[in-house]
Amino acid sequence: MFIPKIEIQLPEWIHNYLDSEKITLPNIEDRMRFVIKLSELNIKEKTGGPFGAGVFDDKGKLIAPGINMVESRRCSILHAEIVALSLAQKSLDRFDLGNGGSLKYELVSATEPCAMCYGAIPWSGVSRLVCGARDEDARSIGFDEGPKLKNWIHELEVRGIEVRRDVLREEAASVLRHYADIGGTIYNSAGKC
Amino acid sequence: MFIPKIEIQLPEWIHNYLDSEKITLPNIEDRMRFVIKLSELNIKEKTGGPFGAGVFDDKGKLIAPGINMVESRRCSILHAEIVALSLAQKSLDRFDLGNGGSLKYELVSATEPCAMCYGAIPWSGVSRLVCGARDEDARSIGFDEGPKLKNWIHELEVRGIEVRRDVLREEAASVLRHYADIGGTIYNSAGKC
Repeated sequence: MFIPKIEIQLPEWIHNYLDSEKITLPNIEDRMRFVIKLSELNIKEKTGGPFGAGVFDDKGKLIAPGINMVESRRCSILHAEIVALSLAQKSLDRFDLGNGGSLKYELVSATEPCAMCYGAIPWSGVSRLVCGARDEDARSIGFDEGPKLKNWIHELEVRGIEVRRDVLREEAASVLRHYADIGGTIYNSAGKC
Repeated sequence: MFIPKIEIQLPEWIHNYLDSEKITLPNIEDRMRFVIKLSELNIKEKTGGPFGAGVFDDKGKLIAPGINMVESRRCSILHAEIVALSLAQKSLDRFDLGNGGSLKYELVSATEPCAMCYGAIPWSGVSRLVCGARDEDARSIGFDEGPKLKNWIHELEVRGIEVRRDVLREEAASVLRHYADIGGTIYNSAGKC
């Protein structure tokens, strides 16, 4: 039987946006602002849902950006965090970004991760998660964050992963509201669209 | 900056194994036997961890197989379930396999899903999950299933996803034990290998 292959490739606009420069953002708000901007551009360019993310090293250097590409690539796995983590692992050529805990990498996400992306974080080897908008901001526009643990932050912390939330939460949440206002697709679990 | 693309492609042996035939397995044990065989072959061919999965339609026709390719492709996202769901969505050209609940698809996994794959299931549009080995069988050889809800089955059921567990559990668990016996890599969260 024929089994296709899948390519995970960012759209052209993001390559143009990033240009040929290396991006280093030592300030945590600047890193959050960067992933919020990706969320905004993803809506504007019509390449996916209102979600952006990025993996940065401990100097604030961008290793890989991520945007939601579920609708445009017809793949429910392609949330911003999954895209950023996968591309970062490809760039660094290892499945454990932290290389056994010796190196520090951070996942910055404009919205707190859904159940899938949350579960992906411990496997990825990042040692910090930084979030903007909260779960409830995503739910307030109709997205289902999925079956997540109530004590999800604690469960990351016991695995050695620090969590920072509410970084530019209002700016991040306003992108979600804008997406709902312009009638963006709200897709959800169990085929409820 | 340069951002690579990622290809998700099954290894050559699986194409040879599946041959050019369509595979239809109306019996649930036969579907489980098929994904357990994928787990075994994945060990034998040294292309990943001891995990296999498949997406089937409601007649038992295989839509896409999946195997763990974390180590070989250096990507922590590439668990068997994620691979099978992504390839099935690519084959059917939609991110919601169930197409709004009108069609029935099943994810069969040789081992109960980790936290990430669990979180991916509601987004995928499958309406049934069938599992062989249990979480504790994976944990007993040293794998961490990640931060999963205690009532994970209930949380799928309330989202309209039926769960069948313990289908050929012993056969599935014996593949995990074999992997541990021959010294297969046990990778885990937070970079603990």
